[in-house]
Amino acid sequence: MPRHRVFTPLRWSDMDAYGHVNNVQYLRLLEDARVLAFGEQGSHGGGSLVSTGLIVARSEIEYLEPLVFRALPVAIDLWVTAVGGADFDLGYEVRDPDADEVSANGGVASQVVGVTGEVTEPKVYARAETTQVVYDLATARPRRMTPEERQRLAALRDEPVAWRLRRRSRG
Amino acid sequence: MPRHRVFTPLRWSDMDAYGHVNNVQYLRLLEDARVLAFGEQGSHGGGSLVSTGLIVARSEIEYLEPLVFRALPVAIDLWVTAVGGADFDLGYEVRDPDADEVSANGGVASQVVGVTGEVTEPKVYARAETTQVVYDLATARPRRMTPEERQRLAALRDEPVAWRLRRRSRG
Amino acid sequence: MPRHRVFTPLRWSDMDAYGHVNNVQYLRLLEDARVLAFGEQGSHGGGSLVSTGLIVARSEIEYLEPLVFRALPVAIDLWVTAVGGADFDLGYEVRDPDADEVSANGGVASQVVGVTGEVTEPKVYARAETTQVVYDLATARPRRMTPEERQRLAALRDEPVAWRLRRRSRG
Amino acid sequence: MPRHRVFTPLRWSDMDAYGHVNNVQYLRLLEDARVLAFGEQGSHGGGSLVSTGLIVARSEIEYLEPLVFRALPVAIDLWVTAVGGADFDLGYEVRDPDADEVSANGGVASQVVGVTGEVTEPKVYARAETTQVVYDLATARPRRMTPEERQRLAALRDEPVAWRLRRRSRG
Repeated sequence: MPRHRVFTPLRWSDMDAYGHVNNVQYLRLLEDARVLAFGEQGSHGGGSLVSTGLIVARSEIEYLEPLVFRALPVAIDLWVTAVGGADFDLGYEVRDPDADEVSANGGVASQVVGVTGEVTEPKVYARAETTQVVYDLATARPRRMTPEERQRLAALRDEPVAWRLRRRSRG
Repeated sequence: MPRHRVFTPLRWSDMDAYGHVNNVQYLRLLEDARVLAFGEQGSHGGGSLVSTGLIVARSEIEYLEPLVFRALPVAIDLWVTAVGGADFDLGYEVRDPDADEVSANGGVASQVVGVTGEVTEPKVYARAETTQVVYDLATARPRRMTPEERQRLAALRDEPVAWRLRRRSRG
Repeated sequence: MPRHRVFTPLRWSDMDAYGHVNNVQYLRLLEDARVLAFGEQGSHGGGSLVSTGLIVARSEIEYLEPLVFRALPVAIDLWVTAVGGADFDLGYEVRDPDADEVSANGGVASQVVGVTGEVTEPKVYARAETTQVVYDLATARPRRMTPEERQRLAALRDEPVAWRLRRRSRG
Repeated sequence: MPRHRVFTPLRWSDMDAYGHVNNVQYLRLLEDARVLAFGEQGSHGGGSLVSTGLIVARSEIEYLEPLVFRALPVAIDLWVTAVGGADFDLGYEVRDPDADEVSANGGVASQVVGVTGEVTEPKVYARAETTQVVYDLATARPRRMTPEERQRLAALRDEPVAWRLRRRSRG
């Protein structure tokens, strides 16, 4: 599976006055995951997927389940949904870690394992997509990606985002 | 024109390390405008458009121009793009105030008037849409809107959002 | 009185899960006021108080009253409490606007005027102090202020912050 | 040593337009560490140190070194500096993890180990102190701590914060 999984701890301040992780903060979590995957530290220790700046040109997100602050990190899966000449789309899923991943990431296994010890089905909290334009930071202009960059992105290509709420007639 | 215009000052902290208003913070600005329009103070002094809680179920935004912090507030136009039984969609445009509005809102007219005194065309920085579900806060469940609520929303009905970047084939 | 008053609107997102403006966000409000007073737009339209970058070296704040989101802006008074060779201290008071200022700043006079029309005593929500170091952005080093800069700061000099909670024995 | 150490990942958005972790965000990091230490998950797996709500009444912080976003978490040491009847003070130090802690927390050991493999001295980025008032959430009033609560806090008692910049004459 070519999806890239990042574990992101929540902050208590991600919650708003309703006591849930605020809808805007979900996009902050996506940014966090994207920076870790595409930043200088790169993807899987293999260097950055693209070598220059990325500008977000578009964001779309559906909120599926309310999320409350907890010590357990969320898992953010991200993958490529489209590759253009100077831009590409990323799909995201914000979800609970799988039960076998928990001990390695914060060690609060009790939160996704029920009180009787049975494994709870991990929840999906949101699905999202963002469009990134690849920039030449020196000229402050979009630039075409190199074949190697497109190849690296293509290796993360997976299914389109499974939107539930997007209504064609409204777009 | 049934669009509702809110003037929202930027904060210096809305900028990120690239020196532009961060893409996530645009949604914060939309939240700010929505709360002012739908909050207890209500719309145009006439009370809230809906009388109970709103949960954001979906957000979509396109970033059209980079925005840098300045003392001049941005104008956020919001209007209704769809009305369902228990939910409705809002369209947004984040833009410069018109030149004749500036003196009344922060008084930094020089920023949208060119150095020779000619009026600069106000820029549109982003277009967006969010879906709100109307909640009964007591039962924590969605509830159908009353005819009066639907009527108030319908009075703010305007054109669909003029998306530029949304690609049908990717959805 | 040499204090400089800035009116800063709250954002709904300034509240945390307790339903009050979060203690950390108060410092965000102070930053906002400081940038407006010291930024390019300058103080009272007269240009910036200092002509290069400021780095915050120290912050101290006491929270005196809980603050809940509202459309009415808060007033932030800021003034100079100390001037050094390359640094200076600012005092702050976060408070309700005076009743006669309200109509000019958001027009929600009912919020500081009681239901019978009598004027409610404006509350003070927090008192704070920050130390700024004046930087030469080109060399990324502190630099001594010019006599003119020190003179402009001295014109904003006022009383030390009236701390209530600071305990000498703990420092 | 009775200090409690929490590892907190930075977020790219913690940086401001100057490209450093913003001074206000340091207090966000402290909040994050405090919530993890005092929250429901409790301290060292042993349950919360105090059983009801905490309100921050005072914050003080000194910024010692600039901090730039990186994948490596920061270590936040927190400890008790004073215990009153209904309140207590916490001291904090925001610092690099020790070299032997790095592989267990994000595994980016190269960032605190120099290019030649020699261990770099971990930096201290900030020192801070906050005062918390213990609240009875049901009555929304401060309440006296129980002897057991005071005993648990006393077990985390350590030295006063080693302020560098606080000036007595200005207080």
